[in-house]
Amino acid sequence: MSDDALVIFTPSGKRGRVAKGTPVLTAARALGVDLDSVCGGRGICSKCQVAPGYGDFPKHGLHVGPEALSPVNAVEERYDRIRGLKPGRRLGCQARIEGDVVIDVPAESQVHRQVIRKSASERVMVMDPATRPLYVEVAEPDMHEPSGDFERLAAALEKSFGIKGLHADLAVLSGLQTTLRKGGWRVTAAVHEAGDGSAPRLVALYPGLREAPLYGLAIDLGSTTIAGHLVALDDGRVLASSGLMNPQIRFGEDLMSRVSYAMMNPGGAQEMTEAVRGAMAGLAAALAEEAGVDAAAVVEAVVVCNPVMHHLLLGLDPVELGQAPFALASGDALHLQAAEIGLAPLAPGARAYILPLIAGHVGADCAAVALSEAPETREDLSLIVDVGTNAEILLGNKTRVLACSSPTGPAFEGAQISSGQRAAPGAIERIEIDPVTKEPRFRIIGNDHWSDDPAFGTPTITGICGSGIIEAVAEMRIAGIMDPSGLIGSAEQVGTPRCVATGRTHEYVIHDASPDGPRVTVTQGDIRAIQLAKSALYAGARLLMDEMGVDQVDRVVLAGAFGAHISPKHAMVLGMIPDVALEAVTSAGNAAGTGARMALCARSARRAIEAQVKRIVKIETAIEPRFQEHFVAANAIPHATAAFAELAKVVTLPPVSFNAGGAPEGGGRRRRRG
Amino acid sequence: MSDDALVIFTPSGKRGRVAKGTPVLTAARALGVDLDSVCGGRGICSKCQVAPGYGDFPKHGLHVGPEALSPVNAVEERYDRIRGLKPGRRLGCQARIEGDVVIDVPAESQVHRQVIRKSASERVMVMDPATRPLYVEVAEPDMHEPSGDFERLAAALEKSFGIKGLHADLAVLSGLQTTLRKGGWRVTAAVHEAGDGSAPRLVALYPGLREAPLYGLAIDLGSTTIAGHLVALDDGRVLASSGLMNPQIRFGEDLMSRVSYAMMNPGGAQEMTEAVRGAMAGLAAALAEEAGVDAAAVVEAVVVCNPVMHHLLLGLDPVELGQAPFALASGDALHLQAAEIGLAPLAPGARAYILPLIAGHVGADCAAVALSEAPETREDLSLIVDVGTNAEILLGNKTRVLACSSPTGPAFEGAQISSGQRAAPGAIERIEIDPVTKEPRFRIIGNDHWSDDPAFGTPTITGICGSGIIEAVAEMRIAGIMDPSGLIGSAEQVGTPRCVATGRTHEYVIHDASPDGPRVTVTQGDIRAIQLAKSALYAGARLLMDEMGVDQVDRVVLAGAFGAHISPKHAMVLGMIPDVALEAVTSAGNAAGTGARMALCARSARRAIEAQVKRIVKIETAIEPRFQEHFVAANAIPHATAAFAELAKVVTLPPVSFNAGGAPEGGGRRRRRG
Repeated sequence: MSDDALVIFTPSGKRGRVAKGTPVLTAARALGVDLDSVCGGRGICSKCQVAPGYGDFPKHGLHVGPEALSPVNAVEERYDRIRGLKPGRRLGCQARIEGDVVIDVPAESQVHRQVIRKSASERVMVMDPATRPLYVEVAEPDMHEPSGDFERLAAALEKSFGIKGLHADLAVLSGLQTTLRKGGWRVTAAVHEAGDGSAPRLVALYPGLREAPLYGLAIDLGSTTIAGHLVALDDGRVLASSGLMNPQIRFGEDLMSRVSYAMMNPGGAQEMTEAVRGAMAGLAAALAEEAGVDAAAVVEAVVVCNPVMHHLLLGLDPVELGQAPFALASGDALHLQAAEIGLAPLAPGARAYILPLIAGHVGADCAAVALSEAPETREDLSLIVDVGTNAEILLGNKTRVLACSSPTGPAFEGAQISSGQRAAPGAIERIEIDPVTKEPRFRIIGNDHWSDDPAFGTPTITGICGSGIIEAVAEMRIAGIMDPSGLIGSAEQVGTPRCVATGRTHEYVIHDASPDGPRVTVTQGDIRAIQLAKSALYAGARLLMDEMGVDQVDRVVLAGAFGAHISPKHAMVLGMIPDVALEAVTSAGNAAGTGARMALCARSARRAIEAQVKRIVKIETAIEPRFQEHFVAANAIPHATAAFAELAKVVTLPPVSFNAGGAPEGGGRRRRRG
Repeated sequence: MSDDALVIFTPSGKRGRVAKGTPVLTAARALGVDLDSVCGGRGICSKCQVAPGYGDFPKHGLHVGPEALSPVNAVEERYDRIRGLKPGRRLGCQARIEGDVVIDVPAESQVHRQVIRKSASERVMVMDPATRPLYVEVAEPDMHEPSGDFERLAAALEKSFGIKGLHADLAVLSGLQTTLRKGGWRVTAAVHEAGDGSAPRLVALYPGLREAPLYGLAIDLGSTTIAGHLVALDDGRVLASSGLMNPQIRFGEDLMSRVSYAMMNPGGAQEMTEAVRGAMAGLAAALAEEAGVDAAAVVEAVVVCNPVMHHLLLGLDPVELGQAPFALASGDALHLQAAEIGLAPLAPGARAYILPLIAGHVGADCAAVALSEAPETREDLSLIVDVGTNAEILLGNKTRVLACSSPTGPAFEGAQISSGQRAAPGAIERIEIDPVTKEPRFRIIGNDHWSDDPAFGTPTITGICGSGIIEAVAEMRIAGIMDPSGLIGSAEQVGTPRCVATGRTHEYVIHDASPDGPRVTVTQGDIRAIQLAKSALYAGARLLMDEMGVDQVDRVVLAGAFGAHISPKHAMVLGMIPDVALEAVTSAGNAAGTGARMALCARSARRAIEAQVKRIVKIETAIEPRFQEHFVAANAIPHATAAFAELAKVVTLPPVSFNAGGAPEGGGRRRRRG
């Protein structure tokens, strides 16, 4: 009889011969099979559960009998009695291989498993987190062999898990003695391994075997809003999501005004740094509370942001980003102590990872979008637009990926719009204008009905949000209320009393509850603001298309929380994005946030985006003459688009000019869409 | 004619063939020759000066003509004109090898040179500092190839000096942009390479070529005093030395009372941490000011201290150190940011290195003494005693080294002594008592004359310091003023009115200026305090000797600032140290401070002591029954020592007992030493 046995692991297919009596966990490690274990083989964490297969395996030429594994032992019986073990399951650290056997590693026993979550996004989340919980039993101090508590802990982690050269920050060291004694020298260590050759770090220590998972924060730090997810690091599920306004808004609505603030006010940059760090800390605390988890178990944070926010968060002077050559102080991915950027209270040694910046105007948020959308993996040509105060644009396919940013300003977010407001209950978010009567109907956030439905009731209408203003302007164009140059016609020209003169221009009244309530209008100034914003966005996309040598793209992805709410049709009528078949326009939701979560859950994602960012071709719009040309050319709101045709279903053309009191041209009857 | 040439470097003897036209610096690097360069071969730093040898070298079978090196070029001519080049010297980065040649690398051109300084100690200081100044020219930002300032700096350092994977703390990053632009993209980077496999770190950046050296701090953090040296990191010279009281004294004179304070007062440990960090920062600033150097050029600090001070400095709870098993929170050497322990303002990324602790009672200060004295390198058996509030004792030779500590208390430092005071002007530091007349004469700090010399004058005598009380007690024993048990005789028993009754015991009056001035006496309580202290010290030494299996040592080294002031003869009369020939007793001065400087100047010293500390055999006195036995047995002050004989040169024995009014025995005439 042979002294060793064949073991075949599924689903990996890894196989090899091991000495009889070898525990399944040991065999798995020896063969490089991904089998989890927190307790290092002590039979208490149950993470190493396996499902041995018995019977005939003709493919492998094997018959496996029950004697192939050692009998269920006392540890397993006790575990099953107290916690319950699924039928057919064994603990990999207890079951020993006694004969040829096929062993299945169920998905939940794999460390690097793929987990599909329905909640925050439908993303397949690869799990390979940098920080893992590791249970160890630490030698007690012995005055005859004096050594430090930390050194004994490190020795235990090296022995059980092969962790070499463990490092601990003072903040972690200071709590070590208490936790070790509280746990009776049995502790769960949260150990961070960046995977970049740097020393493993002790991030936190918990008494005894920690049953609950460790947590991480994925933070999308925008100019206007800060959004965060609290994620369980065992399977990537999102336990809480929250957002708040970036308190830096009081120093300037857009990035360039914040850079100016830093330039003009000594200590201004530091003031903004403190403001954003305070807000992020508050968000972290709120997320932990919302999820009902102990903040001390939050061991990592991943932050994505644009370059100016990046510098302001890190305490770096952003002034160079406000002028050519837009030099970054540092652009590579950063591994930091979370406390260095004021992220507290988390685990005492919590780490922070900041995705790499792409260029002086193209940030880590865009890198996160690139990570999430991965255009470099596709044959077809994707145009990915992250709409924000500064739009970041990616264009690419398997051959190459280009990136640029475009200064759209905050109009798309409802700022600098006369009746504009942030997306909040009461804000008009959708609108249709009848091309014959020029009468609008609309929906507001927090109400499921259109305004012409009796069920709409009489809610207070507070203003118009970003997606609302885009639809309004597009509908005004379709309905012939404004001409291709963006000029709003007079009541006479358009044929509706909703067009009201204000000085030398006109505004279109969507809703009027004055004098007791709000009046929501679209002014000529609003149209101009939207025209500037959309021209900038379009010009950026066109610039990349020129660089790529193409006249059209295969698909358009609208990214960003805001992008998710834009009507693609209206965006195309406006000319925000290049013309493409409507079905080829998709929303990626908060792709930057998704990319941040991916980087939080998997070191492989960090390596991937760090490498990809180096490959992305960066185009600087600010100094590119063609950008100005495209920008000027894109100012008009034409009607030669597929979207226009589909939305308007016109039989005759809408007016081409309201200039100098000219009568509307072609203002005939139109058939409204279905 | 051959295309390559033989080059032989002296004094290393390293040799090899290089292609003709190779610069001497390049050849040196290729052959592993230690030739300095700050500017990376740009001919501006002059650190790479070499002295080529011309003529016949029969040993090498070579004749070297002037054509063996390229002619002096414009860069060298300019350097010689402006700064002056010693005759025969060439710049290694400019001179090219054109034929077989012998090249001498003068000591000052070696990075790892040995430098002998006379000032702070006569130590040969090996130079191999962790932080080096490196001059680089950094690529300017290019918006078409966007990258961070830091990344371009790191690329330049990698290209010129092979620095890979450079890391920078945020505090360093935040000043980068300004310095790079101020220096016109030419900067001197202070780069720290711990040599332990961790990433190199950018510690500071200076505009242009920095001519002045970088600096480091060596700090000996004692329970009572904090002493610091500011050291130039190019040659190890001490530019300033200073000391101050440890402000923790207000929480407890000795270590155990501080541990008690931490135990009894919530937040007490933190209070003490803040106090000592504040004092160290103040000392750092004072040293920089005294030396007249910019604190921003202080790039490193090395700290040595006992375990309790270690924990209190690092913010670790010291309570475990107050009770068996005296468990350290962490004992290994630590690499920290200086700012983490409050050491500021230094260079923004300044590093701190803390020597390893040896055991719960045997600190990094003792490790520094072990580094400085290196008993493991000697054939003879050394007993090294660092006298302080807690004495740390090493015993060893090439075979092995043992260590322990002994709780002597502060009596040796003049504390807990009735007329005791710290060593300061006016304190009695030396004393002799005439064995016949029992009259004392003494010297005080700040006065070069004995008190019986008319030149002594009438200074104010303020008290007695540590070395003074040791001499006083020993002299009292020799003069028959007290008996071997330590009892002071009465005026009648001793035969001098200087023995005055105080209650049931007597005191010996050294000086009495009352009622208008101080009265300096040695009380029975003082004798008891000294007896306890010396018994503890002796018992510790004996315990190590037992462990080593020896009855005597070959030499005794008294370490510590205080040890330098102790009279070895009196110490032996007291029985502080085992009996040994007087000439075998030496003072090592502030050996802990010297060890700290060695670790500051050379990474090799750090590696050496880290390895040695692991080899040292630790003996815990607190639980060792033999320690108590030795302690009790050592209480008496016998007279059977060589030192006694030499000091007293007695012909008859001094009194053996003043018990119960017994008459002095053998109190006959004695001949005073010459």
